Order: sequence, then C-alpha cells, then structure tokens
Amino acid sequence: MALLPLLTDEQAPARARAVFDDIRASRGTDYVNNIWRALANDPAQLEATWSEVKRVMAPGALDPLTKELLYIAVSAANNCSYCLHTHTASARAKGMSEAMFAELMAVVGLANETNRLANGYRVEVDAAFLPKP
Amino acid sequence: MALLPLLTDEQAPARARAVFDDIRASRGTDYVNNIWRALANDPAQLEATWSEVKRVMAPGALDPLTKELLYIAVSAANNCSYCLHTHTASARAKGMSEAMFAELMAVVGLANETNRLANGYRVEVDAAFLPKP
Amino acid sequence: MALLPLLTDEQAPARARAVFDDIRASRGTDYVNNIWRALANDPAQLEATWSEVKRVMAPGALDPLTKELLYIAVSAANNCSYCLHTHTASARAKGMSEAMFAELMAVVGLANETNRLANGYRVEVDAAFLPKP
Amino acid sequence: MALLPLLTDEQAPARARAVFDDIRASRGTDYVNNIWRALANDPAQLEATWSEVKRVMAPGALDPLTKELLYIAVSAANNCSYCLHTHTASARAKGMSEAMFAELMAVVGLANETNRLANGYRVEVDAAFLPKP
Amino acid sequence: MALLPLLTDEQAPARARAVFDDIRASRGTDYVNNIWRALANDPAQLEATWSEVKRVMAPGALDPLTKELLYIAVSAANNCSYCLHTHTASARAKGMSEAMFAELMAVVGLANETNRLANGYRVEVDAAFLPKP
Amino acid sequence: MALLPLLTDEQAPARARAVFDDIRASRGTDYVNNIWRALANDPAQLEATWSEVKRVMAPGALDPLTKELLYIAVSAANNCSYCLHTHTASARAKGMSEAMFAELMAVVGLANETNRLANGYRVEVDAAFLPKP
Repeated sequence: MALLPLLTDEQAPARARAVFDDIRASRGTDYVNNIWRALANDPAQLEATWSEVKRVMAPGALDPLTKELLYIAVSAANNCSYCLHTHTASARAKGMSEAMFAELMAVVGLANETNRLANGYRVEVDAAFLPKP
Repeated sequence: MALLPLLTDEQAPARARAVFDDIRASRGTDYVNNIWRALANDPAQLEATWSEVKRVMAPGALDPLTKELLYIAVSAANNCSYCLHTHTASARAKGMSEAMFAELMAVVGLANETNRLANGYRVEVDAAFLPKP
Repeated sequence: MALLPLLTDEQAPARARAVFDDIRASRGTDYVNNIWRALANDPAQLEATWSEVKRVMAPGALDPLTKELLYIAVSAANNCSYCLHTHTASARAKGMSEAMFAELMAVVGLANETNRLANGYRVEVDAAFLPKP
Repeated sequence: MALLPLLTDEQAPARARAVFDDIRASRGTDYVNNIWRALANDPAQLEATWSEVKRVMAPGALDPLTKELLYIAVSAANNCSYCLHTHTASARAKGMSEAMFAELMAVVGLANETNRLANGYRVEVDAAFLPKP
Repeated sequence: MALLPLLTDEQAPARARAVFDDIRASRGTDYVNNIWRALANDPAQLEATWSEVKRVMAPGALDPLTKELLYIAVSAANNCSYCLHTHTASARAKGMSEAMFAELMAVVGLANETNRLANGYRVEVDAAFLPKP
Repeated sequence: MALLPLLTDEQAPARARAVFDDIRASRGTDYVNNIWRALANDPAQLEATWSEVKRVMAPGALDPLTKELLYIAVSAANNCSYCLHTHTASARAKGMSEAMFAELMAVVGLANETNRLANGYRVEVDAAFLPKP
C-alpha cells in the first residue's frame, strides 16, 4: 500500500481527472497507472510531472526508445522497482528486445563498477578530457 | 592526486603494459588515460576491466553510441566526475551532438525525480506491469 | 524476515531490555517496533542509536516536526522503506498533513532532478556562493 | 568547467534570455547563477526547471525556509556540491541560522545511518505502520 | 518475478549451462541460484560475471571472509536485497558470526553518517591526508 | 572552504575543546583534522560522533583494520572524498598494503556491478536464502 491513497476517478479532484483524461487520450488506453493515482493527491504536481514526461520523452534529437532505455538505466542505478517495471513495459512496446535489455543492463553494471573504481581511487580527470575554457 | 600512483609505462609491470598496448592499438592513439594507469597497480583487475569495456561497449543489439549515452546516464546518477568527462568525450567522438547530450540529461533529471516520487510514496507496481509467472 | 532475529522481551539481553523500557517510557506506549528488536542483537549499538535518536530529534533550533520532515526526505532519497513508513507515522502524529507530505515529496523530487542536472553537467559553483576564507 | 558552456546573455537564445529576465525580476537581483546558464543550452528544459522551482518552492502547506532545509537535506544525501552551496545561501537569506544548519545536518547524518541499518538488516515494516487498505 | 525469465537447465543455452556446471563444481552443490539463472539470458555476461566473482573473491592479500564482509557492506550501502541475502549466507558459511555481522553493520551505519556529514558540510581534505605528488 | 568554519582551538567552545583533547590523547598526536573542526560548530554532535567512532572502530569481533577496510568500501560506494582520504591513511597506518587496497576496491567494483544487475533485473531472493521464520 502506498503512503497516500491511490485515487480512483471518483475520488480525484477535477484538476487531476483532467490529467487522467489526457493520459488516456495520449496513450490510447483507458488504463491510468498507480503513480498518477498517487500523484493525484497533489494535482499541481500531477500536472507538472505528466507535462514533463510528455515533453522530455517526446521524439527529439534522441528517439523515444533510446529515451526509455536511459530511463531504465537511471532507474536501475537508483533501484526504483516501480519505474523499472513500467519503463521496461514502455520500452518493450517501443521495440526493446530481450537482447537490447540485456545489453542495457550490462552497460549499467559496468558503469556502476567503473564509477566506483574511479571515485574510490580518486582518479583525477586527464587534462585532455577537461573542457577548454 | 589519486590514492594510488598513476603508473607510467616504465613503472607498470609487464602484464599492465600489455594492456596499455592493447588500449593503444584498439583506439588508434598513443594516449592511455588515467583510470588505466591507476588500475595498473592491480594488473589482473586492469585486464578484467579493459576486457569488459571492450566486450560490453562493442556493437551488438545496441549500437556503441547508445551504449555511451547509457554510460553517461549512470555516471550522472552516481556522480562520477571522471566517467562523465571521459564518456562525454567518447560519445561526442561517436556522434553525440550537444542537443543529444541535453536531452539525455533531461531524461536523467526526470527519471531521478520520478524514481524518488515512486519510491518515496511507496507506490506499488500495477498488476498489469508485473511479469507473468 | 530480517537477517537477524527480532528479539522479544524474553530473548533480549538485560541491556537491551533496559532500552526497550526507556523507549516505552519516552513514547508513552507499550509497543517497541522492529528496528529496535533487530538492533537488540547488538545492545551497545541499540543504546547508541536510541540515544542519538532522542538527542537529534529533540526540540532545538528546529522543531520536532521539521526534523521528521527532514528524516522523511533523506529516507526517500535513500529508498528506505522501513524508515519511510515509521517516520511518516511519526510526522503525522506530530501534525504533518497530507498536503505537507505532498509538498515535502515535491521538494524531494525537484532536488533529486536538479542535483543530477548540476552534477551531470559538472556545473562549477559560482564564486558568489563560495564561503569566504 | 562545465560539460556545456555557461551561456552569457549575449550567447543565450531569446527563449533562454526571457527566463534569465524572469529570474532577475523574481529575485530582485541582476545576478543569474551558473546552473541557469548551463541549462540555457536547452531552453525548454531551462523554462521547465525554473517554472518548477518557482512552483515547488513557493509558500504552501510548508513555508519557504522549511522547503530550503529539505532541499539541502536531499542535496547532502546525494552529494551535490553545487546545490549545497546555492541552497545553503538561499536558506540563510530566508533565516537559517548556523544552529539550524547544524541540526539539519545532524538529522541527515542520523537518517543516513538508520536507513542503512534498516535496509542492511532487511527489517520488515511493522504491521502497525503499514497503511490500511 | 524478475524482469527476464530465470532459465532452467533445459531452457538455458549450452554456453550458459557450461557456466552452471562450473558453478556446481566450484561450490560442491547442485544448486544454482537465481541471479545466475537470470544472467543466463545473456550468456556472455553470465560467463564474465561468474569469472569475475571467482577471480575477485578468491584468497589473495585479503582472505575470502573479509571479502564477503566488504561485499555485504557495499550491498547495504546500495540497498541490494538479493546480494544481502546471498552474501550473508556465504559469509556465515565462511565463519561470520552474528557478532561479526552486527559490528559490520555498525561500521556501515557510522560510515554512512559521517560520509554525509563530510559531504554535506563540504569539509576539505586536510593537506596532511592528500597524496604527495 | 567548508560551509561552516573550521574552528581553531581558540574559536572552539570549551565542550568542543575537550573533545579535541581526547582526540589528541587517544591518537597520540597533536593534530586534529578538519572534520572535527567542522563538527565543533555543534559540540553535542561532535561529542556524539567522536564517541561513536571510538566505540564502533574499537577491536571486537572484527579487528580494527577490517573495520577500516569496511569504512573505505562504504565511502567509495557513497563517493565521500574526505572519508576516502582519511580512512585510507588510517588503514595504511594499521597495516593495509597497496595490494590489500587494490583487492578491496576490486570487491567494491564487483559488488556495485552485481548490486545493479540484481536490482535492475528484479531478481527475487531464492527461498533457500530467506531467513527461516
């Protein structure tokens, strides 16, 4: 059980219901998942988060699948079970194969290892890699 | 200054120098960067890490540029200055534009926000997103 | 199940039982929660942790409710389910409303986002914000 | 040096300059700090982040000083040097005394300790603290 | 349920089964635990991870029990439930007593506290502790 | 520069100076390092932290060198530069060789990798490794 109630359509304030409607229209599904029903307790935050998800995850210099892969990588680094489950589902719907998921996790594992080796040894950045003033 | 000396070619044991040579040959450059010179204090670890970098970052179901973007995303989540500098350089060499980097960071920022909202509210995973037994 | 047994009053050594008694007296309840029963396997650590909780969470320059909010914020950043459940209960007992909890989580989400943007871009601290020597 | 250039007013695109102007007007100062000049490389992200900072940090169920304290707590947990410097400055401007800062850090330290004790021992949440379905 | 299927011996490709066999032979047990069955979806990663576990956890300048303690400490800092359960089992099999586990967790708790105090206060490293160039 | 002044003996309140004296006596040196001078701004916290360091790091079921190694491992996982520098110095003073440090870091790197693989794949704990009720 979440620490705030997951609001049904009937329980949600009008401003939150309007976001639910936009989620349904944008995704072409009637299903509104739990994170949005939790955020509905704070309609302004719900609006802002949904608006950011639409903006940031839209096609741009990076395609939507690549953005989903990045989302999964960060969620694995941060150990967010909710985000791992929902964004692997989104990524698969956008074409992530099992082999792509496995390679993504291999990079996550390797980066976590070398991040700690570099930080733990306190390796200074090579002058060659520092941005030029 | 790192917590272990960055070994020059002259200081590195033969097993480590062999890895330096492979780094040079694989990358087509004479430059061996600091992380490898730090790891040279433990030649078996140097061999294993370099071998894993070559294996994991090679083209596969994901292309090398996408892998670099994932590496950067994890390094930003973990706050590894060394890895951020070196892998943004690698990613740029493989075609990452400034717009791609900015979009990558936008996903990292958003995922970090929603990871904490989902974890902090203890939102349970929707049954619809749980793997089927 | 925890990795060490949760000791009942009968199982706990005398030194741990004395802490249980102080917890009961300080809180005006007969209930001793699981973290203390786990720490009872190491009575010196139990004493020290309980002593620190009493000292740090007491009224001072910050009031006890503000301290509970800070505790929740850190626990959300660190993804501690146990601490989130117990400290939201404590905070609510001290007056945290649902609106306050939602705003707290909004700050946690935003700070996590900007922490990673600043760290990921390696933004240098403005001279204006550096402490004066 | 940051990984993207800190854009001056002259270098920033018009959309970013409009945000700079709003920052100046909102804060009653001519100074625009580095994080905004870094984000100006991605004007849509700059707009969104600044808009969220204004929304989330505004007075509500929690007062602005309490929100700054929470921001600092998260930034300490995440080790964001930039955010620690800027938000301790903001908090001090809003009334944070040295004693308040020290107590805040004491809570951050204690929560980090007990977060790891609870997570490390895998202590299960007491039934009494679980939300009622 | 994991995000990729846990492969049985029958489902695993030959290359993964060979690793399963080596795990059985090395450990003198018929049981192959879940992490290996998950990694079997990516046989090259399974080989590399198992090979690294054998190499890194072998006796060297540090004995295998000390290495298990270090593994547990990192897993507690990172909140990895899977690793905490399996490596406390391994450590107990190698001689970790309940008192040793409790002292290990006390160090983890204390280090997490002081890590955040030092990082949060931005305490500069004493010149006396900096490596000599 | 730290976010609070590093108090000299002259600036420190009497209660903090008493801790400085105990640090000097316990360590047989006249040098009091920066973290204690920062904490001196909050004498009660200084007393508590120093007292815990003495208690937790003392010989027990684990010897002091093993405890230093654990401290370093956690500090590398958390990226605490201050703690890495001071505790590698302490560990070396207690007998940590360069080979031991390198093996410690290898375990830290490996555990960080497998922590993320297990968390990222959401691998469930084997029934065989769950504590018996």
